[in-house]
Amino acid sequence: MLRIAQIAPLAEAVPPKLYGGTERVIWWLTEALVDLGHDVTLFASGDSATSARLVPCAETGLRLAGINDHTASLIAMLDRVLRAADQFDILHFHVDFLHFPTFRHLAGKCLTTLHGRQDLPDFRPAFATFREMRLVSISDDQRGPIADAQFAGTVHHGLPRDLIPFSEKGGDYLAFIGRISPEKRPDRAIEIARRAGMNLKIAAKIDRADAAYFEAEIEPLLDDPLVDYVGEIGDADKAAFLGGARAMLFPIDWPEPFGLVMIEAMAAGTPVIAWRCGSTEEVIEPGRSGFLVDTVGEAVAAVDAAGSLSRAGVRAAFEARFTAERMARDYVRLYERLIGEETTALFGKTMIAAR
Amino acid sequence: MLRIAQIAPLAEAVPPKLYGGTERVIWWLTEALVDLGHDVTLFASGDSATSARLVPCAETGLRLAGINDHTASLIAMLDRVLRAADQFDILHFHVDFLHFPTFRHLAGKCLTTLHGRQDLPDFRPAFATFREMRLVSISDDQRGPIADAQFAGTVHHGLPRDLIPFSEKGGDYLAFIGRISPEKRPDRAIEIARRAGMNLKIAAKIDRADAAYFEAEIEPLLDDPLVDYVGEIGDADKAAFLGGARAMLFPIDWPEPFGLVMIEAMAAGTPVIAWRCGSTEEVIEPGRSGFLVDTVGEAVAAVDAAGSLSRAGVRAAFEARFTAERMARDYVRLYERLIGEETTALFGKTMIAAR
Repeated sequence: MLRIAQIAPLAEAVPPKLYGGTERVIWWLTEALVDLGHDVTLFASGDSATSARLVPCAETGLRLAGINDHTASLIAMLDRVLRAADQFDILHFHVDFLHFPTFRHLAGKCLTTLHGRQDLPDFRPAFATFREMRLVSISDDQRGPIADAQFAGTVHHGLPRDLIPFSEKGGDYLAFIGRISPEKRPDRAIEIARRAGMNLKIAAKIDRADAAYFEAEIEPLLDDPLVDYVGEIGDADKAAFLGGARAMLFPIDWPEPFGLVMIEAMAAGTPVIAWRCGSTEEVIEPGRSGFLVDTVGEAVAAVDAAGSLSRAGVRAAFEARFTAERMARDYVRLYERLIGEETTALFGKTMIAAR
Repeated sequence: MLRIAQIAPLAEAVPPKLYGGTERVIWWLTEALVDLGHDVTLFASGDSATSARLVPCAETGLRLAGINDHTASLIAMLDRVLRAADQFDILHFHVDFLHFPTFRHLAGKCLTTLHGRQDLPDFRPAFATFREMRLVSISDDQRGPIADAQFAGTVHHGLPRDLIPFSEKGGDYLAFIGRISPEKRPDRAIEIARRAGMNLKIAAKIDRADAAYFEAEIEPLLDDPLVDYVGEIGDADKAAFLGGARAMLFPIDWPEPFGLVMIEAMAAGTPVIAWRCGSTEEVIEPGRSGFLVDTVGEAVAAVDAAGSLSRAGVRAAFEARFTAERMARDYVRLYERLIGEETTALFGKTMIAAR
């Protein structure tokens, strides 16, 4: 049994009230670690709900509380973590690099999962300066732009086995889910549906930043009788939306570091047709859980092929590789390796001191 | 002679290539401290220019380099400051609170100037958590929302005595300078000019965030033949623009923590008509360097009165209270007090240890 601290960003509650992929993954991980018998403490906002011990570090999630700059709340939380650090075997951080300066002397028991894209130069000075802090990538592809940073491993996300039930039958439409934004390429999804002559249901929110893009590029395409924009859907409707689809389209045009919605579709038994981009090659097994494509033409062909894929096989691919339990076991293996290295290092020091 | 480190934000070079009030003030302060004979080291971006010793902590200012999130670059810089900390008597930070966690053990020689508004709740957890870190406000009014934070003093900004020459004659228009934004209230400036029957020249930039406000609220008002929108002006034109005005209007509607443009106008000998709001009561001496008003009616009356104010008297008010030399001397006084307290504290400890 390990004494584990999970340190969450304070942007959203754990689990989040609305959106928040990172907080959702932290929630699943924390529950799965508790299920595996570990002693887990969660540093997160006060409106979080967990089977672990909760240390509330802000009244509520900061975004919905209207706090724009989260840094002060985070460094105040990190101060609490630091004061409690000797109560833990492992400190697992999900706050990018903000803890590096104050935890470098404890680097041997710190692990940091990077949840975001790393192709922008903004974060690099932190990885270059605090090289003793060990990182975890959520896909191998995510590491590309910072390949020389100090990675301890890749742990793909997982979700609870029973969160999205297997849907044996599927249906007669293509699904697009997420955000309407240029890098998610809903325009490609619409073109694929038209050329395949198949219905497309779009369940997506439109962030304020993407309103102009929606109006200029996407809204004019929604007239097509094949295309049905159903707006934003909640978690409760997601299983039915994904489970009722022939295939999910994931025609992204940016280095998506993981892409939770792919494994959500797989959990429902729905194959995923994804652009070969970012993490998709690591998630999709072509011909088993979906298809990887480079062009709209290939995607149209994949829509056809998806109809003859075994939905039970898609579900099996999910269960084999993308459950929260598998994710938790992967992390425990990394925790144990870290502790082992630390013990070796200490033992080495003792030997030298004894001479 | 003190060994002083100035730690600048990396957003802009010191001095800034374009905008950047904070970096401009740090430049003036650093030059004035060097002039007073101190040994000053400036931690700033590599394209900075200073009479002090420069430690370049980023290639160029981050904003113009397209870096959006400055935090990683800042914590990498703070690591360099920390490694050099024992070479300095005083570490003077201009990066809000980001250094608090790693410099708290050196709090006795750290001083932090807050350059921004403090009426938003975002920063408060940092001030509440790291109470040993001593702060400097740039106006007493700035402290209002965080009155219980640990302030060592207020130091009003100052600018080099010869930066903006005294303009004996003034002219026949009102000046508005800065940004077109709702909190700067250019609409009020236009109303004042209309009711006073006087020309208004508006020298202001329009940030992307304010484009909609400009189009909806301000552009329709620019038809008035009394109003002349001259767009954005550079530093070179500022002295003539301010010096040629009858009065400068500063009709703000937000808690402006200082308002450099007020003392720039005063340096030119141009009286300032300011709303009683934020720092203005601390900067303007009514009837000497300008007028404080609460309504457009009062502002119109002040336009009249401004014509009979002595411009030499306005300049004298600037020279008495708002030069960079005065600012530097104020800071040195705070540095020395800090060092004195630290010495007393150390001496106290020694006495106890000796018993």
